[in-house]
Amino acid sequence: MTKTNSSPQPREIAAIDIGSNSFHMVVARIVGQSLQIVSRHKQRVHLASGLDKHLNLDQAAMNRGLSCLAMFAERLQGFKPENVRIAATYTLRQAQNAHIFLQRAERILPFPIEIIPGTEEARLIYLGVAHTQPDKGKKLVIDIGGGSTELVIGEDFDTHILYSKHMGCVSYNKLFFSNGKLSRKNIAAAQLAARQKLESIASKYTDIGWDKTLGSSGTIKAIREVLIAQGHSDGVITSSRLHRLLDKISAFKHQDDLELPGLTDERKPVFAAGVAILSAVFEALDIDDMHFSSGALREGLLYEMEQRFRHSDIRIRTADAMAKQYNIDTTQAKRVQTTAIEIYDQIDTQPGINKNELSTLLSWGALLHEVGLNISYPGFHRHSAYLLRYSTMPGFNIEQQTVLSTLVRYQRKTLKLTEMPELTIYKRKHLYPLIRTLRIAVVLNGQRSDEPLPHIKVKADKEHWQLTLPKGWTTENKLLAADMRTEQEYWHKAGWMLEVNELSDS
Amino acid sequence: MTKTNSSPQPREIAAIDIGSNSFHMVVARIVGQSLQIVSRHKQRVHLASGLDKHLNLDQAAMNRGLSCLAMFAERLQGFKPENVRIAATYTLRQAQNAHIFLQRAERILPFPIEIIPGTEEARLIYLGVAHTQPDKGKKLVIDIGGGSTELVIGEDFDTHILYSKHMGCVSYNKLFFSNGKLSRKNIAAAQLAARQKLESIASKYTDIGWDKTLGSSGTIKAIREVLIAQGHSDGVITSSRLHRLLDKISAFKHQDDLELPGLTDERKPVFAAGVAILSAVFEALDIDDMHFSSGALREGLLYEMEQRFRHSDIRIRTADAMAKQYNIDTTQAKRVQTTAIEIYDQIDTQPGINKNELSTLLSWGALLHEVGLNISYPGFHRHSAYLLRYSTMPGFNIEQQTVLSTLVRYQRKTLKLTEMPELTIYKRKHLYPLIRTLRIAVVLNGQRSDEPLPHIKVKADKEHWQLTLPKGWTTENKLLAADMRTEQEYWHKAGWMLEVNELSDS
Repeated sequence: MTKTNSSPQPREIAAIDIGSNSFHMVVARIVGQSLQIVSRHKQRVHLASGLDKHLNLDQAAMNRGLSCLAMFAERLQGFKPENVRIAATYTLRQAQNAHIFLQRAERILPFPIEIIPGTEEARLIYLGVAHTQPDKGKKLVIDIGGGSTELVIGEDFDTHILYSKHMGCVSYNKLFFSNGKLSRKNIAAAQLAARQKLESIASKYTDIGWDKTLGSSGTIKAIREVLIAQGHSDGVITSSRLHRLLDKISAFKHQDDLELPGLTDERKPVFAAGVAILSAVFEALDIDDMHFSSGALREGLLYEMEQRFRHSDIRIRTADAMAKQYNIDTTQAKRVQTTAIEIYDQIDTQPGINKNELSTLLSWGALLHEVGLNISYPGFHRHSAYLLRYSTMPGFNIEQQTVLSTLVRYQRKTLKLTEMPELTIYKRKHLYPLIRTLRIAVVLNGQRSDEPLPHIKVKADKEHWQLTLPKGWTTENKLLAADMRTEQEYWHKAGWMLEVNELSDS
Repeated sequence: MTKTNSSPQPREIAAIDIGSNSFHMVVARIVGQSLQIVSRHKQRVHLASGLDKHLNLDQAAMNRGLSCLAMFAERLQGFKPENVRIAATYTLRQAQNAHIFLQRAERILPFPIEIIPGTEEARLIYLGVAHTQPDKGKKLVIDIGGGSTELVIGEDFDTHILYSKHMGCVSYNKLFFSNGKLSRKNIAAAQLAARQKLESIASKYTDIGWDKTLGSSGTIKAIREVLIAQGHSDGVITSSRLHRLLDKISAFKHQDDLELPGLTDERKPVFAAGVAILSAVFEALDIDDMHFSSGALREGLLYEMEQRFRHSDIRIRTADAMAKQYNIDTTQAKRVQTTAIEIYDQIDTQPGINKNELSTLLSWGALLHEVGLNISYPGFHRHSAYLLRYSTMPGFNIEQQTVLSTLVRYQRKTLKLTEMPELTIYKRKHLYPLIRTLRIAVVLNGQRSDEPLPHIKVKADKEHWQLTLPKGWTTENKLLAADMRTEQEYWHKAGWMLEVNELSDS
């Protein structure tokens, strides 16, 4: 009893999935070793239908999304940032003006919105399903969203193969049923387009093979409900049932007329597109039957928040794997990492900044800063930046990859700060100290020597930094002193100032 | 004797090295298993001194270079293209307006000028030295050119490590002795800058280690001659001899006054810079003594021409290594390669085009077209293009890497031809048929299936291509037919036309 008294209130965590069709929020409490779902919220926003052919998200769609987020914000009052994760998928990945939506969202919801890559979405969906259905054996998980479809084979909590394809019930409805008209021809066109999308990857899945097929997402749930209402009480989706369902759908002339037991009015406009995509997936991967799983992206986000808290961060595994694949000189990388963290720990950051998270990003940036050397030496900082920006990096969202990429891009040479990409969650003022820190750490370890560095004192006052080195150290290290002077010039040209002093006698 | 009668005249080959200080030409005959040098030509052009700070090569320097090439052209009259290789190094690598020089050179000299990457320059220098001094053991080879310095450790004919650093006797003379004034201070500044350049790589060389140090290039030859004239008849360059030489140099006030026995007037303006760089290399790598080797880039070019003729092409090894490093699905790559070559063989090309060379590039492009998948699936053709453009690829010149990169960039999706980079040796009209061929091969093998493709007949009339497929084949392969229609649309948007027919009954 005394023990229980000392334990705090169970931690309450929340995840929001900013999907292309619906927005979902789920709130859970961590009780002992498990998650207890406290509440679920869902609103159909059909964000993807507001994306025009130039990939601009229109005002109406933005407003629908923002008013949904305002509603969720009420529920999240008092939540700490570390207990909320918000992930945006296909539509915001695609939208050229996503930053406008994010800026407006920031005023409504005081938590960062992470735009995640398609493969990261696939991984998190798999994680959500794997926690919900912890069966043995290899699982194929299919999720048909509003804008993208994820296909994953995994086992336990690890994935073997994952892809995210640009096809979803909202986008395909717009492409193939834009007038709401249903016909065998429209359905066949949607199916064929989906088959083309899957063509190049299908054999990779069948080569790996799987034991059980699970479907998540609203599309698959809706299909299951219609099948159950038709008398298939096991709720299993089979190839032949899908065919008969498509026959039924094509008997209607218009989506508005779709009268199928179990089908909600809300689902009607995107149902035919969803069934067409699923039937194409069944054909391409030669699937016999599929069971529904209630686990999805949002559960994946929740379980990972909990996991990050208790176990290891998958990002560590990702960074290590990358270091290995690109033959990083890890001895040198760790030297730079150690120096960088030692310096960054001495920096005061503005309140409201998650210094821990930034410090972690710095640490990975230091570990991976030479990854581009594997491509070629000339301009290797640019190659490092390219690899960190575009590689599939499980566990990282797009913003984090952009931060890492920018950090290594500016590790050396001229500071062309005008070339810096736009950020959404972080600001430049967060990134600049990381860049300055990494550069100093790179210069100090320029000789790639095993001799340990002395303690370096750093005082940072905005863009004016003061390094204090041990007395006589620059005299004994002429090359390093020359490198420091070169570095001071780079800072000077960027409008920054790097002052290098030596400890006085007293 | 009968055998000798049937053997043709010995093949005569020539190599030109368009260096930053001097242009060199060497002509040789292949006699039996060895090269017999027939003639050597050298002219000091000091091209690098015409490079301004915006990296534009000035008219005067261009004219000096072109009149030298005109002289070489006389000697090369009647040579077949396959018997001449011309490589340009640092200055043309750097010059923003290199294409202007190349265009003008094309009118004077009817052979392609290849701009080669620094690492390729290093590899060829090593090859030249290795053939000239075929001693056992690991060799460190140093070459101080007008604009760059190459450092290589190799054994037999293979290199272990190679770098090309941006420092040379012409560029360093401009940076540190621009007024011709000699002083201890100027020399020390040049030495320190060179040490900074070498700092990050020095430990990599000392970790590998070597048995013998060899120096090539005019700078090292000139130092050797001065030492010999001073009475060091062994011609060995040692650390202490270099120090004493620097002392002597700094006793003069101006380069014009430099009176050292053995030093030619032509060498005077770049001698101090060259000695400063070499002494920095000695210090950084802790070298005791160095012997001169007459082998250099031009010999490397010659030996490789001969080697290509008789043994294997190093580019095969490069492409295979890259396929391995990036985990290429070689089964699929070979399918695409086979189809591509089968199609390309049916295409008539304009006379004057080296179809063999283009076909070889197509073949490597097909082998490596999916190399970017290792970074990530979305936009992988762009990742493939990045890797082929920027990777160190032994045996390939910059133009060949650009062709490969462009080819894989346009393997799929929209043909944004306006984004195509400028070429110097090849023309777009050479590249377009390669792109069309690769695209068709990619589409035809879209299902990654082991089922062999039927014979595809191709008729190409400029941008209008006709494919003829077996009767009934598209009806049996609905997905492929859909892919072909998509591909036809891409061609149409680019102003090309792809006609797909089936064989008629008769």
